[in-house]
Amino acid sequence: MKNQDFVESLRASATEFTPPVRSLMDVDFYKFTMGQLILRHHGGMEVVFKLIVRDPTASVGHIVSQTELRKYLDYAMGLRFRKTDLYYLRGVDLYDKYMFKEEYLDFLRDFTLPPYQLRQVDGNIELTFRGPWERVSMWETIALAIISELYYRSVLAKIPKHELELVYVRAKDRIYTKLETLRRHPHIRFADFGQRRRHSFLWQEWVIGLCRDVMEEQFTGTSNAWMAFHHDLSPIGTNAHELPMVLAALANSDEEKVASQYTVLKEWEEMYGKALRIMLPDTFSSEQFFANAPEFVGEWRGMRQDSGDPFTRGHLYINWLRKHGIDPREKMLVFSDGLDVDQMVLLQEHFEGQIKTAFGWGTLLTNDFRNCHTGNQYLRPFSMVCKVVEANGVPCVKLSDNINKATGPVGEVERYKKIFGATERTSEVVLV
Amino acid sequence: MKNQDFVESLRASATEFTPPVRSLMDVDFYKFTMGQLILRHHGGMEVVFKLIVRDPTASVGHIVSQTELRKYLDYAMGLRFRKTDLYYLRGVDLYDKYMFKEEYLDFLRDFTLPPYQLRQVDGNIELTFRGPWERVSMWETIALAIISELYYRSVLAKIPKHELELVYVRAKDRIYTKLETLRRHPHIRFADFGQRRRHSFLWQEWVIGLCRDVMEEQFTGTSNAWMAFHHDLSPIGTNAHELPMVLAALANSDEEKVASQYTVLKEWEEMYGKALRIMLPDTFSSEQFFANAPEFVGEWRGMRQDSGDPFTRGHLYINWLRKHGIDPREKMLVFSDGLDVDQMVLLQEHFEGQIKTAFGWGTLLTNDFRNCHTGNQYLRPFSMVCKVVEANGVPCVKLSDNINKATGPVGEVERYKKIFGATERTSEVVLV
Repeated sequence: MKNQDFVESLRASATEFTPPVRSLMDVDFYKFTMGQLILRHHGGMEVVFKLIVRDPTASVGHIVSQTELRKYLDYAMGLRFRKTDLYYLRGVDLYDKYMFKEEYLDFLRDFTLPPYQLRQVDGNIELTFRGPWERVSMWETIALAIISELYYRSVLAKIPKHELELVYVRAKDRIYTKLETLRRHPHIRFADFGQRRRHSFLWQEWVIGLCRDVMEEQFTGTSNAWMAFHHDLSPIGTNAHELPMVLAALANSDEEKVASQYTVLKEWEEMYGKALRIMLPDTFSSEQFFANAPEFVGEWRGMRQDSGDPFTRGHLYINWLRKHGIDPREKMLVFSDGLDVDQMVLLQEHFEGQIKTAFGWGTLLTNDFRNCHTGNQYLRPFSMVCKVVEANGVPCVKLSDNINKATGPVGEVERYKKIFGATERTSEVVLV
Repeated sequence: MKNQDFVESLRASATEFTPPVRSLMDVDFYKFTMGQLILRHHGGMEVVFKLIVRDPTASVGHIVSQTELRKYLDYAMGLRFRKTDLYYLRGVDLYDKYMFKEEYLDFLRDFTLPPYQLRQVDGNIELTFRGPWERVSMWETIALAIISELYYRSVLAKIPKHELELVYVRAKDRIYTKLETLRRHPHIRFADFGQRRRHSFLWQEWVIGLCRDVMEEQFTGTSNAWMAFHHDLSPIGTNAHELPMVLAALANSDEEKVASQYTVLKEWEEMYGKALRIMLPDTFSSEQFFANAPEFVGEWRGMRQDSGDPFTRGHLYINWLRKHGIDPREKMLVFSDGLDVDQMVLLQEHFEGQIKTAFGWGTLLTNDFRNCHTGNQYLRPFSMVCKVVEANGVPCVKLSDNINKATGPVGEVERYKKIFGATERTSEVVLV
């Protein structure tokens, strides 16, 4: 990995113009795979995305300067894809040859991030993005990465230099130790999913370099297109909750709402073929998803587990597969819900021999600075997302397998619960 | 452009392992366009490429250490294309969508540079490459760039540090001044063609960055695939002498030899369509090329002028076009023969309004250190090429429009002159 002087970079960021996101490629790869589907099937639909800080004690509104935030969001709005970026996207054949069609590449050629609305409300940041879905959607991980980095810059700005050195020494020790643990479990395969809540761009880049050097085959890639491009890693990512959320919001009847979570899978496989078929069943709870799932779901390669208890969610899928006469050992569970090393070990050992596993390791890979500065409560990750909240004026809802990850107006959430059925949902603390 | 400490890098190269070529993408783009054609139509043909130092006073054999050269040629043999490189090549759509087919990308995926033979003969370096054409061909600009950089490292190693600073200050002043001149001639469009005889990788990269920043639209790209990739420039390049040379060598009769220079154009346009159709007529002299040229040559976009007097060569083409009822203003002359600023200005002004012009500016763009260190005769570019000399055991010949650029055994050159006709050829000093 690159040997960075993190302390020096941090100090420079206090006085120089140092955008946390400098390229439109510095975004999660799934924004492209979803973006192409959105453009093709739902282009022009008016949506609203909104920043949701799940953890009020993080005091984001007080810690992140609005002026700074505005400056770097504005900068991001001036970014354009380069020729080379589009050559790269056209040429990616990891999942299929020519997975991005000229229609979408033409769209990206002229793409800029649409305007944002930023307000301070009761000491909190209110950040919303409104516009055509295919454009607004791209803000998600970019906005989050900008806020996340500005947050930690601000937290660290108050710490004297020699203590900063220590902070980074401790964080490096921590990540090294984690990777050492994972090396003792060679069947664990993981990818970096950590852009959105990263400590900083440079830190993520350093961590990724470390993973590549230390973990070899166990490190399978990164969700960040820029990192994949520049460090010759596999770009990883498929689809996310925004697809079924918007489709359900716009469905004309309760039956259509339930059906829409499968419609999107049909659109997906029609566009991408086999390799990218990893489903995300928890948008309106995984129990009802599998209870109502049509046969073709059995052809998909696997599922991503992003909420609820990962063990029971895994077995829900395994049982569904067995019931449909499908050998789970040919399928894959991709875990991505607030992972850290111990849990990855437990999950891998538990599911070994039953089903293939893969891990999308996010925040606790690229931003574990907990207790790296004694007594500093802010040097920890906090839960923050940027979610679709409205489509064509209709509120969007996520139920999730974890009550604390649900989004949408209370009344709508209740209505969705009735429509989709009050299935098992747990209440776990959302750490990241 | 990147602000490099050239002196420091130079000093580091004396003690550290610092390969002049670190990526298989650090090669001229035409090696790919030609390589694909070679693989498809002439794959597996046994060829010999050979280093030819046209200027014996450069003392390459004394200045370049054989041990160093061997070390860095060996290093180059260990290089592989990265996933990202192949994504990029698959996605380049500058000339046509999907110009590189899977057959060729598969070949590149497993590609390594084939072995070389290096000997010291009478104080000179004898460097040859023998093997299948599609593999050997790739050595050309890589081997040249390695030798070139090692040569100047060695020359500069004898100069004290404060004088080295001055060398670079002068070279920077020189290139700045050249670009200032070109800015006063906004109709001049040029690309960097300077990898093969560059001062160093870092210097080429710096010069390219400078061109981009200073010249804007006048700077149209670079022949170097790595530079294009990493600096978001258009990769420039089409075909070179090796194609007609090998085809002529293997032709079964004199008539076939003459015909082969057009056969290759047919193979080319069949593979690449319209945009890449820039011909190189001087292999066996441009006069006979146009005298015998079939009608379809009139459909090509233009020609590259690489030897002989550029003014008369240009008019040869213009006259041929007019005779065939084609408006030369729709065609292009690409000049690439040892260009420097003054000549570019003269050529552009001369041909303005008659035919489009473009300039492939090589050695005097990326390696003009003449007189940058008082009295040092070696700090100048020298003429060196890496040419095909044999195909399936048959010697290869180039006649060229400049007698001093001819290659091949004397007897064969005479035979070719009879076959192709003793047309006008001039004798110009080959500076680079």
